[in-house]
Amino acid sequence: MKIKLNCDMGEGFGIYTLANDKGIMPYIDMANLACGFHASDALSMSKSIALAKNYNVQIGAHPSYQDLVGFGRRSMCCTQEEISAIILYQIGALNAICKSHNTKITYVKPHGALYNDMMKDENILKAILLAISKYDKNLNLMILSSPNNDKNKALASTYGINLIFEVFADRNYNDDGTLVSRNYSNAVIHDINIVKQRLVNLQKGYLLSINEKKLKIKVDSLCVHGDNKNALELIVSLKDILNED
Amino acid sequence: MKIKLNCDMGEGFGIYTLANDKGIMPYIDMANLACGFHASDALSMSKSIALAKNYNVQIGAHPSYQDLVGFGRRSMCCTQEEISAIILYQIGALNAICKSHNTKITYVKPHGALYNDMMKDENILKAILLAISKYDKNLNLMILSSPNNDKNKALASTYGINLIFEVFADRNYNDDGTLVSRNYSNAVIHDINIVKQRLVNLQKGYLLSINEKKLKIKVDSLCVHGDNKNALELIVSLKDILNED
Amino acid sequence: MKIKLNCDMGEGFGIYTLANDKGIMPYIDMANLACGFHASDALSMSKSIALAKNYNVQIGAHPSYQDLVGFGRRSMCCTQEEISAIILYQIGALNAICKSHNTKITYVKPHGALYNDMMKDENILKAILLAISKYDKNLNLMILSSPNNDKNKALASTYGINLIFEVFADRNYNDDGTLVSRNYSNAVIHDINIVKQRLVNLQKGYLLSINEKKLKIKVDSLCVHGDNKNALELIVSLKDILNED
Amino acid sequence: MKIKLNCDMGEGFGIYTLANDKGIMPYIDMANLACGFHASDALSMSKSIALAKNYNVQIGAHPSYQDLVGFGRRSMCCTQEEISAIILYQIGALNAICKSHNTKITYVKPHGALYNDMMKDENILKAILLAISKYDKNLNLMILSSPNNDKNKALASTYGINLIFEVFADRNYNDDGTLVSRNYSNAVIHDINIVKQRLVNLQKGYLLSINEKKLKIKVDSLCVHGDNKNALELIVSLKDILNED
Repeated sequence: MKIKLNCDMGEGFGIYTLANDKGIMPYIDMANLACGFHASDALSMSKSIALAKNYNVQIGAHPSYQDLVGFGRRSMCCTQEEISAIILYQIGALNAICKSHNTKITYVKPHGALYNDMMKDENILKAILLAISKYDKNLNLMILSSPNNDKNKALASTYGINLIFEVFADRNYNDDGTLVSRNYSNAVIHDINIVKQRLVNLQKGYLLSINEKKLKIKVDSLCVHGDNKNALELIVSLKDILNED
Repeated sequence: MKIKLNCDMGEGFGIYTLANDKGIMPYIDMANLACGFHASDALSMSKSIALAKNYNVQIGAHPSYQDLVGFGRRSMCCTQEEISAIILYQIGALNAICKSHNTKITYVKPHGALYNDMMKDENILKAILLAISKYDKNLNLMILSSPNNDKNKALASTYGINLIFEVFADRNYNDDGTLVSRNYSNAVIHDINIVKQRLVNLQKGYLLSINEKKLKIKVDSLCVHGDNKNALELIVSLKDILNED
Repeated sequence: MKIKLNCDMGEGFGIYTLANDKGIMPYIDMANLACGFHASDALSMSKSIALAKNYNVQIGAHPSYQDLVGFGRRSMCCTQEEISAIILYQIGALNAICKSHNTKITYVKPHGALYNDMMKDENILKAILLAISKYDKNLNLMILSSPNNDKNKALASTYGINLIFEVFADRNYNDDGTLVSRNYSNAVIHDINIVKQRLVNLQKGYLLSINEKKLKIKVDSLCVHGDNKNALELIVSLKDILNED
Repeated sequence: MKIKLNCDMGEGFGIYTLANDKGIMPYIDMANLACGFHASDALSMSKSIALAKNYNVQIGAHPSYQDLVGFGRRSMCCTQEEISAIILYQIGALNAICKSHNTKITYVKPHGALYNDMMKDENILKAILLAISKYDKNLNLMILSSPNNDKNKALASTYGINLIFEVFADRNYNDDGTLVSRNYSNAVIHDINIVKQRLVNLQKGYLLSINEKKLKIKVDSLCVHGDNKNALELIVSLKDILNED
């Protein structure tokens, strides 16, 4: 299956804008739309949905801890019940606005600290899976492709949920398939050409680790970032590579 | 058709509680549930929905201006677009949590200042109707029964929306069918017996105005308040009257 | 007395930025700093204060209605007590962070809808004056210079508060000294040269109305906007004019 | 020195109330007032301050993580800079409203998860001490009396800050002077008589651990809770014991 580009979009708030959504939307396949807890608001969500629909981009809910000032990047000590509830609240809110545009969400990708916590703590992953399964088992959950894929897939299937495995376009990976920690200076790839080569490699079925080891890694979607200055240029290049395929 | 009792419920927030929801829920027919903008939060909403479902009480969304500290009682200058968007956001959030409980909302009743503004300003009513019609035309809108019923009904029908007309159990009415303003000391009825007699009268098709004029008034539902000390006693009495019918 | 340039600054929020504060700060005299109710947050306020202090720019509190998503631009129906309380809360918060930087606020300028409401409704002006007078009578209040200057000055003096009268650099004025309403297409001046000429005129003691009538208008400070693309260029030009004086 | 009773007060929000503040205030010595981040709002703070002042109760700021819906009970991953900034923001806000009542705060006691994190993580304690020292070195910091008292005192003194050591009236202590974890069923003392005896013991200089070991423990203040049904009765009893002394 063709690799899809996914990007966090609709992360403005009120009068604030974050990324060049209008420029980027035409080149991506899946838009992870903020739901008002770390960014966005009801009216902004409506505009983001209209933009995504205009370019036939799949819409995913991008729910978060309730932390506007911290942009959802600060881990919060929540119970499983609280997490299930805030997931349902946010995906319901976004999907209602989608419905008003005659479209709907097709997947869920948690944001920021909630995403990281989900990858580290199975109880959080379970709370998220439970919420989605109670809302609509046809929604997929997007998570990080990792050495735990099989385990995560088995867990998700007990909730009747399919997983979408994503790879981060601009993060370095260790030899064991985990991400190089952000505590290290080489966590992030800044060279556009390396990112482009990564996609070419992924199309062939592997990814080069930080030590240039060929890792076989499952990848349904490649996550690109829209909030830096070269974002658009890079995304256009990646889309070109995918279109050549 | 039998008159139904409706009551604002689920108006706690986090650790705060407001009314005796557990006591009152068994005696009402329709619960207007807060959606997080003037009161409640995702987890509290889940608990309120479970409670309503347990007693077979119809669930309505009770959306508001975004004003937690003011409990949605302060009018805010919003555009029609903003109002449509916050209505969709809130009813979608509540309905998603309903779905996780295998139930759903059947109507919408705006809260506080938004309700009052809707009754005074047709543009706001239109924004609300538009939002509901784009989400689900099967949802009814609950509004105040007033001399404008026919006009409001005609307007709602252009959006494909049915109206539920409510009378306030404990508010005095002028001879022309409008509410006695809260600027007057006799705006609110404190005598439980008068409220009970009102329901008996409404079952016969009329309501006594402040000057004891018999007003013919359309009433689908009687709105009772749960947040005062005699609330439960009154509601039980009103339910008895309805059951005798 | 020399006319001072004032500008709304520190109106980012969390990861969001609004204007080119770093570029503009060196050229203004007074920075109106958001206090967390329409924009900014505790850490952002700290950074804005450090920036202002670095350029010896006077710091004013820029309090607002509590409406982050609406950027404080939506009028809210608040009581006088509520307004006094939110003014005190915000100026105290900002001033405490100033104190941690060994500086302090010297004036207060309400933001957005609260500013407009203050100019229209004397009860709101009184609530603001009362709050400031109870906190520190040495703080000045910045308001719009208008035909009501004498009346406003007299009122403020009963609270022991001095007023700073400001003129908006890029708004057209009617012949009677009031602002051309934003309902008209010519409300805002977009031509930089006209704004520059306005400052030259103000230095001579008058302002040209929309009909080119010479209005004598009191002006302690000229309000410039930082959140449009030519903002910096214009502000540098205006500062040059003031420096030549 | 006489042991003082301290109690978290002013923890309502908007229309919500939490504890019987009016009943309790006459019997306590120190009121820890919420500052709007976990509870309370500007107007409520003003009312709480007036109440405290009326009974000559010392006012302390009770700052928290920014988490209204979680009542500040959920730990959040904040940087030291963020913590210092939110401490300054909250104590400044409260103190400004105090100033409008011709009074002022005399100490700071962090709330909930922030309090717990401060006791566990020296970096958080440092961030809090730094904020207070930059605002006003005359403000004391209230922390939990523990085996680390000397170390904490030494650290605080490097910031020029005095500590107030408190003991929790209704929590059991281990033999080593630490609290019995809330994971154990005997963490909290529910028997009023045991709490009263504890105060008598503390006046004699010791505290009985869970194993009835006599612990010498420093205690400047005894923390009582106001938000349960027997709170007032207990507090009146404790005050009687202190008055007999």
